[in-house]
Amino acid sequence: MMVSASSEKIGSLLAGLPAKFTGKVFEIANRTKKLGEDDPRRITHSLKVGFAITMVSLFYYYQPLYNSFGASAMWAVMTVIVVFEFSVGATLGKGLNRGLATLVAGGLGLGAHHLASLSGHIGEPILLSVFVFLQAATSTFIRFFPKIKARYDYGLLIFILTFSLISVSGFRDDEVLELAYKRLSTIFIGGSACIIVTILVCPVWAGEDLQKLIASNIEKLGNFLEGLGSEYFKLSEDIAESKDDKAFLLGYKSVLNSKSSEESLANFARWEPGHGRFSFRHPWTQYLKLGALVRQCAYRIEALHSRLITADTQISLEVRNRIEESCTKLSLESGKALRALASDFRTMTKSPSADPHIANAKAAAKSLKSLLKSGLWEDIDPLEVVPAATVGSLLLDVVNCTEKIAESVYELGSLANFATVEASVSPERSHELIKICSEGQNHKMDCPHIVIKISESPPVLPVNIGKSGQQILEV
Amino acid sequence: MMVSASSEKIGSLLAGLPAKFTGKVFEIANRTKKLGEDDPRRITHSLKVGFAITMVSLFYYYQPLYNSFGASAMWAVMTVIVVFEFSVGATLGKGLNRGLATLVAGGLGLGAHHLASLSGHIGEPILLSVFVFLQAATSTFIRFFPKIKARYDYGLLIFILTFSLISVSGFRDDEVLELAYKRLSTIFIGGSACIIVTILVCPVWAGEDLQKLIASNIEKLGNFLEGLGSEYFKLSEDIAESKDDKAFLLGYKSVLNSKSSEESLANFARWEPGHGRFSFRHPWTQYLKLGALVRQCAYRIEALHSRLITADTQISLEVRNRIEESCTKLSLESGKALRALASDFRTMTKSPSADPHIANAKAAAKSLKSLLKSGLWEDIDPLEVVPAATVGSLLLDVVNCTEKIAESVYELGSLANFATVEASVSPERSHELIKICSEGQNHKMDCPHIVIKISESPPVLPVNIGKSGQQILEV
Repeated sequence: MMVSASSEKIGSLLAGLPAKFTGKVFEIANRTKKLGEDDPRRITHSLKVGFAITMVSLFYYYQPLYNSFGASAMWAVMTVIVVFEFSVGATLGKGLNRGLATLVAGGLGLGAHHLASLSGHIGEPILLSVFVFLQAATSTFIRFFPKIKARYDYGLLIFILTFSLISVSGFRDDEVLELAYKRLSTIFIGGSACIIVTILVCPVWAGEDLQKLIASNIEKLGNFLEGLGSEYFKLSEDIAESKDDKAFLLGYKSVLNSKSSEESLANFARWEPGHGRFSFRHPWTQYLKLGALVRQCAYRIEALHSRLITADTQISLEVRNRIEESCTKLSLESGKALRALASDFRTMTKSPSADPHIANAKAAAKSLKSLLKSGLWEDIDPLEVVPAATVGSLLLDVVNCTEKIAESVYELGSLANFATVEASVSPERSHELIKICSEGQNHKMDCPHIVIKISESPPVLPVNIGKSGQQILEV
Repeated sequence: MMVSASSEKIGSLLAGLPAKFTGKVFEIANRTKKLGEDDPRRITHSLKVGFAITMVSLFYYYQPLYNSFGASAMWAVMTVIVVFEFSVGATLGKGLNRGLATLVAGGLGLGAHHLASLSGHIGEPILLSVFVFLQAATSTFIRFFPKIKARYDYGLLIFILTFSLISVSGFRDDEVLELAYKRLSTIFIGGSACIIVTILVCPVWAGEDLQKLIASNIEKLGNFLEGLGSEYFKLSEDIAESKDDKAFLLGYKSVLNSKSSEESLANFARWEPGHGRFSFRHPWTQYLKLGALVRQCAYRIEALHSRLITADTQISLEVRNRIEESCTKLSLESGKALRALASDFRTMTKSPSADPHIANAKAAAKSLKSLLKSGLWEDIDPLEVVPAATVGSLLLDVVNCTEKIAESVYELGSLANFATVEASVSPERSHELIKICSEGQNHKMDCPHIVIKISESPPVLPVNIGKSGQQILEV
C-alpha cells in the first residue's frame, strides 16, 4: 500500500513537473513580452548598450590598438558598461561625473604621491595612508549632502577610486603620469562612445519623460473625476462589487507615489543639452512644484474615493436627487479641465481650453455650496445629510486643487515659453463665455451647451492620441 | 562721476565679498554639523570607509603582496570603494552580487573565449562580437524586470563587465585562467574586508532602520492626532497664523512620501543575516504592507488637515460645543492608540496597551456618529452643520485606519515573534476595562480615569524614550 502510494506521488510529481515548468516558461515569456510592449524603448536601449559595448570591445581586442593602450584599454569597456544609462541625461551626468572626477582626483593623487615620495622610506607609507584615509572619509561624508547626492554621487565615488589607485600605486612618478594619461584617455573614449550612441540612436530624453509623466498624472486625475461625474451615484454602489470594470478610474493611485521618479527625472533632465523645444535651462524646478500640486490633488481624491466606497456613506435617493446635478457637473467639469490642461501640457502649448471648464466647475461649486448651506435640508432626515455633505466638501477641495494646478500650468507655460495656440473662438468671446458661466449660477445649465458649441467648431489645437488610443483633446 | 560711482561699486563689492564668503563658509559648516548631528552614524560610516580603503590600499602598496597579485590587486581597492554601503544589508547585497556575477560571468566568458578561439583567425572576432553583443543586450533587458532590478541590478552589471573583459581579452587560454583567478581572489579579499568592517564596527542594520522608520511614521500620525485632540478647535484658527508653533504636528507630511525608502530598506534587509531579534527570514513583506496602511492613514489626515486650515470651514461656537467632546476624545484616543502601537512596535513587543485607547476611540466614534445623525441639529443653522459633518466623517475614517494599523501590527507581532509583555493589570481586568469603555457611551468620561489609573500603577512595560526625550509609553 505504502509503496504504491509513494510511487503514485512520484508519478504525479513527474507528470506535474513538465506542466509546471512549461507554465513557468510561458509566464516568463509573457512577462518579457509585456515589459517590451509597455515601453519599446527598453528593447532599443538594450540593443544600443550591446552595440556600444561590442564596438569598444573590438577596439580592445585588436592588437594594434591594444598595444598602444595596454591593459588600461579595458577602462574603455568598463566606462561604457558603467556609464550607459537609459536616458540621455543620466548617461551625460554619469559620463561627466566620471570624467571630471578622474581628472581632479588624478591631479590630486599625483600631488599626494609626489609629496609622500619626498618624505623617505618610512614616512611614505604613513603619509600615503593618512592621505587616503582623509580623502576617503571626507568624500564619503560629503556624499550624504542631499543636493550633492542627487547630482554628484557617482563623481565622488570615482574621485575616491582614482585618488586611492593613483596615490598608492607603487610606480615611479613618470609611470604614474603615463597611467593617469591612459586612464583619462580611455575613459574619454568610452564616455564619448556612450554619449554619441545615446544621443544619435533613438535618444531617450529624461526631460520629455518628466513632461509626459506629469501630463499623464494630471490626466489620470481628470479621468477619475470625469468617470466619477458621469456615473457619480452608481459608483458608490458598484465600485465595491465590480472593481475590475472601474479599474481605469483607479489610475490616480500611481500618482500618490510619483515623487521619487519625478525627482530623479528632473535631476537627469538638468544634465541634458537643449533639444527640440526644451532649452538647456528649462525650468525643471517648476515641474517639481507642479508635480507636488498634482499629488496634493491626488490625496484629496484618495480621501474622496475611500469615502465613496465605505458602506456607511451610501447616499439616499432623496438627497442624491438634490445634489446630483451640481456634484456631477462639478466633478465632470473639473475632470474635463484637468484633461484639457494635461493635453496642453503634453503638447507644450498654452490655450484657454481649460478655462471654460474651470469656470463651469467653479459655478457648480458655488451652487453646491449654497445647496449644502441652504434650507433645502429642513425636510430631510439629518442622518442623510452627513455623507452628502462630506462628499460635497471634498469635491469643493478638489475644485480648489484644480484651480491651483491650472495656475501652475499657466505659470510654467510662460516660464518655459510654451507655444500659444489660438482657439477657434476669439479671446473676447471666450472671456465673455467664461464670465457668463462663472456668474451664471441661475442659468448654469446653459454653460455646457456653450462649451459644447466650442468643441463642435473645427479643432485648431493639435490633436493628441493618448495611450489607450482615444482622442484626449476634445476642444 | 562715473568713475567714482564704479569705484564705489567695486569697493562695496570687495567689502561685501569677505562677508559673503565667511557667511557661506559658516552656512556650510552649520549644514555639515547638522548632517552629522541628525544621524551620527554618518560620521562612523565615513570613518569605516576610510579605514577599510586604507587597509586594502596598503595591501596593494606593499611590494611583496603586489608582486604576487600584480596589477589586478587594484580590484581589491575598487571592490571596497564600490561595495561599501551604509547598511550591512546593502553592503552584503552588493558584495554577493559582485562575487557571484564575477564567478558565473568568468566561467561563461572563458567558455566563449575558448569556443571563439576554435573557429580560426577570421571567425574568432566575429563570433566574439556576437557573444558580447547578445549577452550585453540580453542582460541589459533583464535589468528592466522590477523584481530583478530591486535585488540583482548590480550583479547583472558586473556580469556584463566580467564577461566582456574576459571573452575579448587577447590572451591565451591559460593567461585568461590566471586573470580570472586573480580577479576572483582580489574581489574576495576586498569584499571580505567590507563585510568584516561593516558587521564588526558599529553595524548599521537596514532591517532595524525599517523597523524604526515605520514605528516613527506611526508615531508621527499619533502626534498629529493627539495634538489635534488637545487643541482641536483652536487649531482651525491658529494653524494658519502660527504655523511654526505647530510644526511638530506636521511631521506626518513626511509619511506621505515614505514608500520608496521603505522599499529599498526592505530590499537591503532581505540580505541581512539573523541578528539580535531579527531572524534571516524576518517577514519584511509584512512591514511593507503595514507601511502602506500607515500611508493610507496619512492620506486621510492630509485631507482632514487641509479641511481644517481652509478658511471657509470655520466651525461656529455652537456647533463646536456639541461635537467638541466626542471629536476631541476620538482624536486623542486614536492618537494615543497609534503612539502605543508605535512604541510596542519599536521595542518589538506585543502588549494590550493600545487596546483600551482603540476601544475608547471606537466608543467616541459611535457617539460622534449618533451625534451627527441625531436630531441635535434641528435648531442649528444647517450651513453650520456641513463643515462639522465633514471633519467628523474624516475623523471616523481615521479611526477605521487606526484599527487596521493595529490589526496589522498584531499580525506582524505574531509572524515575527514579538515578545509578549504582561501588563500590570490582569488580562481579565483589562478586558473588563475594554468592555466597560467600549460600551460606555453614556459614561464615557469615566474611561480616561480608568486608563490613567492603569498608568499610575508601576510600569511593567519597557519605558521608551522618544526622539524629543519625552516618555512615549504611558500605560
